[in-house]
Amino acid sequence: MERFKVTFYPDNKTVEVEKGKSILSCALTAGIYINSSCGGEGICGRCKVIVKQGQVLTQPTGRLSIEERRRNVYLACLTTVQSDLEIEIPPESRIDLDKISPEELELRLKGLYSKAEEIEPSYSVLGDEIFVHSPLATKLYLQLPKPDLQDKISDLERLYRQIRKIQDISIMQTGLVNIRRLGEILRSSDWKVTVTLGKRNGTTEIVLIEPGDTSKRNFGFCFDIGTTTISGQLVDLNTKRVLGTKITYNRQASFGSDVITRIIYAKEEDGLEKLHHAVIDSMNEMIQELIVEHKIDLNDVTCVLCAGNTTMIHLLLKIDPTYIRIEPYIPVANFIPTIRAAEAGIKINPRGLLSCVPGVSSYVGGDVIAGILSCGLDKMKDLGILIDIGTNGEVVLGNKDFLISASASAGPAFEGSGLTCGMRAARGAIQKVFIDKEDFKVNYATIGQVRPLGICGSGYIDIISQMLDCGLLEKDGKIKSIPHKRIRKTETGYEFVIAFKEETESGFDLVINEADIENIKRAKAAIYSAVSTLIKHVGVEFSKIKKLFVAGGLGNYLNIDNAIRIGLLPDLERNRFLFVGNSSLAGSRHILLSYDAMKKANEIARKVTYFELSVDTSYMDEYMAALFFPHTELWRFPSVKT
Amino acid sequence: MERFKVTFYPDNKTVEVEKGKSILSCALTAGIYINSSCGGEGICGRCKVIVKQGQVLTQPTGRLSIEERRRNVYLACLTTVQSDLEIEIPPESRIDLDKISPEELELRLKGLYSKAEEIEPSYSVLGDEIFVHSPLATKLYLQLPKPDLQDKISDLERLYRQIRKIQDISIMQTGLVNIRRLGEILRSSDWKVTVTLGKRNGTTEIVLIEPGDTSKRNFGFCFDIGTTTISGQLVDLNTKRVLGTKITYNRQASFGSDVITRIIYAKEEDGLEKLHHAVIDSMNEMIQELIVEHKIDLNDVTCVLCAGNTTMIHLLLKIDPTYIRIEPYIPVANFIPTIRAAEAGIKINPRGLLSCVPGVSSYVGGDVIAGILSCGLDKMKDLGILIDIGTNGEVVLGNKDFLISASASAGPAFEGSGLTCGMRAARGAIQKVFIDKEDFKVNYATIGQVRPLGICGSGYIDIISQMLDCGLLEKDGKIKSIPHKRIRKTETGYEFVIAFKEETESGFDLVINEADIENIKRAKAAIYSAVSTLIKHVGVEFSKIKKLFVAGGLGNYLNIDNAIRIGLLPDLERNRFLFVGNSSLAGSRHILLSYDAMKKANEIARKVTYFELSVDTSYMDEYMAALFFPHTELWRFPSVKT
Repeated sequence: MERFKVTFYPDNKTVEVEKGKSILSCALTAGIYINSSCGGEGICGRCKVIVKQGQVLTQPTGRLSIEERRRNVYLACLTTVQSDLEIEIPPESRIDLDKISPEELELRLKGLYSKAEEIEPSYSVLGDEIFVHSPLATKLYLQLPKPDLQDKISDLERLYRQIRKIQDISIMQTGLVNIRRLGEILRSSDWKVTVTLGKRNGTTEIVLIEPGDTSKRNFGFCFDIGTTTISGQLVDLNTKRVLGTKITYNRQASFGSDVITRIIYAKEEDGLEKLHHAVIDSMNEMIQELIVEHKIDLNDVTCVLCAGNTTMIHLLLKIDPTYIRIEPYIPVANFIPTIRAAEAGIKINPRGLLSCVPGVSSYVGGDVIAGILSCGLDKMKDLGILIDIGTNGEVVLGNKDFLISASASAGPAFEGSGLTCGMRAARGAIQKVFIDKEDFKVNYATIGQVRPLGICGSGYIDIISQMLDCGLLEKDGKIKSIPHKRIRKTETGYEFVIAFKEETESGFDLVINEADIENIKRAKAAIYSAVSTLIKHVGVEFSKIKKLFVAGGLGNYLNIDNAIRIGLLPDLERNRFLFVGNSSLAGSRHILLSYDAMKKANEIARKVTYFELSVDTSYMDEYMAALFFPHTELWRFPSVKT
Repeated sequence: MERFKVTFYPDNKTVEVEKGKSILSCALTAGIYINSSCGGEGICGRCKVIVKQGQVLTQPTGRLSIEERRRNVYLACLTTVQSDLEIEIPPESRIDLDKISPEELELRLKGLYSKAEEIEPSYSVLGDEIFVHSPLATKLYLQLPKPDLQDKISDLERLYRQIRKIQDISIMQTGLVNIRRLGEILRSSDWKVTVTLGKRNGTTEIVLIEPGDTSKRNFGFCFDIGTTTISGQLVDLNTKRVLGTKITYNRQASFGSDVITRIIYAKEEDGLEKLHHAVIDSMNEMIQELIVEHKIDLNDVTCVLCAGNTTMIHLLLKIDPTYIRIEPYIPVANFIPTIRAAEAGIKINPRGLLSCVPGVSSYVGGDVIAGILSCGLDKMKDLGILIDIGTNGEVVLGNKDFLISASASAGPAFEGSGLTCGMRAARGAIQKVFIDKEDFKVNYATIGQVRPLGICGSGYIDIISQMLDCGLLEKDGKIKSIPHKRIRKTETGYEFVIAFKEETESGFDLVINEADIENIKRAKAAIYSAVSTLIKHVGVEFSKIKKLFVAGGLGNYLNIDNAIRIGLLPDLERNRFLFVGNSSLAGSRHILLSYDAMKKANEIARKVTYFELSVDTSYMDEYMAALFFPHTELWRFPSVKT
């Protein structure tokens, strides 16, 4: 087989590959992650690259404009190598943190940087101090009495004895590695040491033994591992302060936008390995950046707590997820034992621990449990509902007596992925939009108050709601052909300009087109119909729902009115709604900081029942009826009607 | 530095070394273990080698006869390399299993091969079925209900649920490795699997998950790791049957004969590593040979249980033993957590477990606890005493109410090491001797009824006792200069011939000389005075001791009369004595087969108090008084007096 050299810019990375290999696959070989929501099927049009030099073969696609074709832009997934090549990857095609211009890098890196105060769960129905402070890993400084002929117990028993003077621990474990170092450490430190005690599956493990007093330096990370985005926080385990937060796209998106595509990809050669590394690499980079920013030694990071949907947790731990998508949809494990983080490839202290929030089923994972925990849904006397708007839309209905959950495949639209100008809720994202009814002038606000780079979920919700109000949009999602500079006809239909290139950071127009709107319509229909099906199943009225917790990484300022206007959320009194943001991350932070919270999460996971929408006939009817703005049955949205 | 090639025969192994390196050290580099009871100090004279070719430098020694010098025999420890060399290692200088002639190999390998019945603890004060059968690792065959839409719990929880239907287990643990394989194993085996459950530090671990029914194949090993000899048994964990037993010299003897020399050696470069490998290699070879003999798959060996003195357990686990010998004599750990055998380098199933019997102090280890357990000393109403005759002589006095222990450094004489014709109690060892009072004709019996190869501990005790009775020996241990063909004068004193070369397997005379007798006198004095000091300390009369358990690897037929005659054991009614053989191995087998026994061992280890002989002034007086056959104070031995 003929082989050719393919060089990627700006990385300046060259790989030698066989003739006929797709450029998407070459990029992965070179270690470059390209956006590919559809998993290389030629559908999403996210993997645009520019062929600077050489011969390629490609397939026809509607995802490229004439202008783009003229500039030698190709879809990497549809294009194969036919000679030595030089390929340029434009910034918008990358899922990558460190190979872009320094300014762009800074923007992307910062992500949604929130100070601790900003993300504290003021939105919870719970008070502030509900969980006792007892982190996954605790440091204890010990001054041991020196042995003498009257007190001759061994070093290890001496250590245990001292720990038990302070804490009541029945089963204590220690690894051979620590025992081997113990004699020397105790004597060289003059019997003054710091032990790190980890909670490990109902027992307590001595994770670390360090000379001297290091008890003030104890840090942990909590993560929400979403299908589309990964959020991570660095937490001081002593003070409970959040020191920093990062959000990045999940690099697994290179292998498909939803969990099903990824489960299928996991069966390919090295597929599971690649998916595993994609998420682990992202997490390690976030950890690395946060500890550098905050001048923390990696050895002082003693534990990691992860919440994620069931597939994400399987891939994180390199557990084959195959049976999640095959009837009867069984995961390998919902309750994952606490392990050493290094076993999963996560780089913190080599003996540090990794724990995952337990899940309920293949499609209701630990992220939902963490969400319930952080909202306090499980403590409510009245009926409440948690709606998590992500690539999977998860819905939990219940109170202190029962909890029932369902999961709907919404796609990544609300996370800003798979849309023409979509981006995650990061600095530069348009997150709030107002359109003037008279002149269609668009007012918007971006995260970080900078020039716009793209549009995030809450921005899209505002745009569609406003376009409906302004009469720019039909109820079925078609853009009306009104003569206006913001309304343009393209090869694939109409588009509406939100920001002209003169205003934007990227130098391109930011638009919404009919494909984007269709995308969002399906997403909102999936979520709304999950809510309505569950409520119907339980046999209650919408009006009985006293609190609606709306979660998701859509942006900081989800406008509830607009979300109801487009039919995403049910039409109830506005004061019953609480937008709680990333409730999964908040919950995983609670659990990182409190073993009581972990026990509560286990309880919740055992209590939640799962309702399988895909085998319920009424769900499809509900979904079809919801494919309108706001809904086919307008009586359901009285406030919109008026 | 000049470098030379040194070739060892019959191994035909060549190593390149620096000029001036000792031949003992070269042999170790070549992976050949040479006897060296004194640790390379030129004292024991065990490391004889023949220089066939080349130049060496050596130091003067009284350990070589003129005849040997003429044959170019040198002590490997005192002799250094000065040119390329060819060295022959005679069989008697080796601690080695597999580089000797096939016949010799067979003899050595068989060791003390005992069928299960022979070694069952008929000598215990306990009945046969005192401990519930619950091995360290248990296999359970499970037929799991297949999941369906009504029964959707995850694979791991399904497995837990099924196990808990059979056993009441609160804390269950599983490693990531097993979880990663679980989905595939369950489905490929049609939901019929065998799990191996291991007892691990108060929790239960799923050690293995295998497809199909392997529950009939579950084997374990118990070991007694002595300073001089290592004994191992292969046990069927289902039937409790002992399938085979092996005994070998501890190869650590190359680095010194007692624990102190080895602790010192551990501080040399790679010293700890070498000591660790010496014991692990021996154990792995014994395991390998026994499983081959019994056609057992290594994967079906799921656990190992070790008893040994505290230093041996430290070296087994590569834990620095330095502080054991430095006042106040503190080991790193007496209670060692159960670990994976592979962590210590022991080759059984890679996920199999290793557990060690807990010890009391630096000089009373798990071997003593196992001994107490197997004798049932801790259950007695009357007072009993356990005397373990090994390189360390350990003594435990007590009953169900109290247990007090002491340890005396006896040296390896009773294990047949460090004596001119000594050998461990293996096939070919003279273990029973009778000397005719008239003509000094020697009648002897060997283990295995074969031609004699050497003399083991019980043989030496008989010889000295008989020589005293025949008037061949003074009370201080000097051989009387009687004209007889069996009594010969040598450079270093007199010797007495037990077997002439015509009768022996080795083709050499088997003799006892005054140095050997001196050696045994010191050993028996150390042990007797430990017993008498402990009894004095507790303030009881000898006559109150109703049972005396005598343990040790001296041979199968310790003659109690003769042991009293030489002053090794106190002079009490003969029916109070029980020779219990290797009680440490028997105890470790109990613990391997019963978690109840393990809990009992933990209890005993916490209950035993330790009496430090080395800081007790009366011990030295007792020892000095015991340096006579039977004793300076003859009134203590009324039966000998008459």
